Amino acid sequence: MKNTTLCYLERDGQYLMLHRTRKAGDASHDKWLGVGGKFEDKESPEDCVLRETKEETGLTLTSYRYRGIVTFVSDRLETEYMHLFTASCWQGQMTACDEGELVWVDQDKVMDLPIWEGDKIFFGLLAEDRPFFSLKLTYVGEKLTGAVLNGQVMDPFSRKTPQ
Amino acid sequence: MKNTTLCYLERDGQYLMLHRTRKAGDASHDKWLGVGGKFEDKESPEDCVLRETKEETGLTLTSYRYRGIVTFVSDRLETEYMHLFTASCWQGQMTACDEGELVWVDQDKVMDLPIWEGDKIFFGLLAEDRPFFSLKLTYVGEKLTGAVLNGQVMDPFSRKTPQ
Repeated sequence: MKNTTLCYLERDGQYLMLHRTRKAGDASHDKWLGVGGKFEDKESPEDCVLRETKEETGLTLTSYRYRGIVTFVSDRLETEYMHLFTASCWQGQMTACDEGELVWVDQDKVMDLPIWEGDKIFFGLLAEDRPFFSLKLTYVGEKLTGAVLNGQVMDPFSRKTPQ
Repeated sequence: MKNTTLCYLERDGQYLMLHRTRKAGDASHDKWLGVGGKFEDKESPEDCVLRETKEETGLTLTSYRYRGIVTFVSDRLETEYMHLFTASCWQGQMTACDEGELVWVDQDKVMDLPIWEGDKIFFGLLAEDRPFFSLKLTYVGEKLTGAVLNGQVMDPFSRKTPQ
């Protein structure tokens, strides 16, 4: 199992998306995601998100929120605990990312991109400004087969999330 | 690094504490802690806390809250991400625990037990009913040398926590 961070920078109704095109052996090759990556030893979630955002965008976050944990379970990939952040303020100049292209995308267009099916659930939770949540997503290959929110089984395809 | 859960059952102003006396090679030998343990593969934090509580107490939690993550960093031990829960309702009969003695302790007496120094900080946060928090605690041996709450350095000994 591994711990990772996933961060969505927000500006003027857009998210900063990373189109993952450049990393060898990337399980998310060609998908669109936020920035982030694996925890290094002794890092807290905040340490990791600050370092990864800096490495991938050149930006130093100055205001961010820890929004939830996504337990990503797959029949093919290692179990991953994705610590999900959003950020609204930063300093510095954006640089190129060696894992793919960084693109600002309107939040209402993000659902139309090739993203992981389960990401649509957490984008909904972020949009609803839910308090910290724990979302377990189970995949067979790239097919989402189960979703559990805060311990409650949900219908992953209804887009209606239990309160 | 490892992911674990740590759960404090609450009843009538008391916490259920585990006096860790029976587990070979236990880094917390003779300390008092909640129940919990290591994530198994494909478990969410909720899956783990339900299984570990059942294994260690015989009880099935029916109402619980995910309160925070504690990043435990040590010069001697593997980095540990402790997913902290409290629980107020459960079913079943309490059984003996093979890791130590289970004892109900008044919440205002917990601070006087031999607990990890940093645990006093999160007990304070629980008592204040803080929203989900991320607390990084750094130890040299058993000495607490640093504490960071939600990315802000705090004075671990003042017991005053940043808002």
